[in-house]
Amino acid sequence: MSPPRFASRGDHEAIEAGTLVMPKFDADGLIVAVAVDAATSEVLMVAHMNEEALARTIASGEGWFWSRSRKELWRKGDQSGNRLTVREIRVDCDQDALLLKVEVAGDGVACHRGYRSCFYRSVVIGKPASASLAFDEAMPQRTAPDAG
Amino acid sequence: MSPPRFASRGDHEAIEAGTLVMPKFDADGLIVAVAVDAATSEVLMVAHMNEEALARTIASGEGWFWSRSRKELWRKGDQSGNRLTVREIRVDCDQDALLLKVEVAGDGVACHRGYRSCFYRSVVIGKPASASLAFDEAMPQRTAPDAG
Repeated sequence: MSPPRFASRGDHEAIEAGTLVMPKFDADGLIVAVAVDAATSEVLMVAHMNEEALARTIASGEGWFWSRSRKELWRKGDQSGNRLTVREIRVDCDQDALLLKVEVAGDGVACHRGYRSCFYRSVVIGKPASASLAFDEAMPQRTAPDAG
Repeated sequence: MSPPRFASRGDHEAIEAGTLVMPKFDADGLIVAVAVDAATSEVLMVAHMNEEALARTIASGEGWFWSRSRKELWRKGDQSGNRLTVREIRVDCDQDALLLKVEVAGDGVACHRGYRSCFYRSVVIGKPASASLAFDEAMPQRTAPDAG
């Protein structure tokens, strides 16, 4: 399958004030994607896309990513049932980050640890750099952590 | 100034279910940080932190980042007046991404292009990969784009 094409990077104004999708993939061919709940705006997960994953997500409205650990294209939810329906994709000013507004299928769990969001722990601000993490007690954890 | 220390990366369980901050910095020494409005949860910007920026943010409650283009430590708002007061910092499951819940000072503009959020354009889903971008008409732009 030949790689899908996005517009090549234009000048500063074209990238920041234009209307062409000109994503900046990094040295590994990846761009960071932040998935948020379309209804509540809660940040659910941060993942990466390569060109193919982005093209599939745009075309299908489902969340596709690139797994850096498994080095493979990955449709979120294939293992867990928690597929992402992507209601909106946004790019940031310099087009090196994506924002996905999603609905999570199944029991609404986005994190492989069984939480609604991957961000289930917070850092205590004001403590030294070795500060500890506090779990979000308001975020329930599904009994069995499940992959993907 | 000697570099601040975070706990070194532990095993899988320590990273994902533990209470020590064990951030995973990438090959360039950076970790991605997503800043959201503490009140509305709207995603405002995606930036990067090195160890020093993260330590300063934790200690001060202000948003410090590493500028990859300028290759320097950068306190958000030093140029624009739009400093970030960080109300909460979260880490994700594998501790390779940060979530900052912030209040933006001044006129509340987080993007150097003069928008409240850097994500002021959306991709039309369902079109080919060369799809165009639509501006968010509901997001006003400050007259003069301002840096940092």
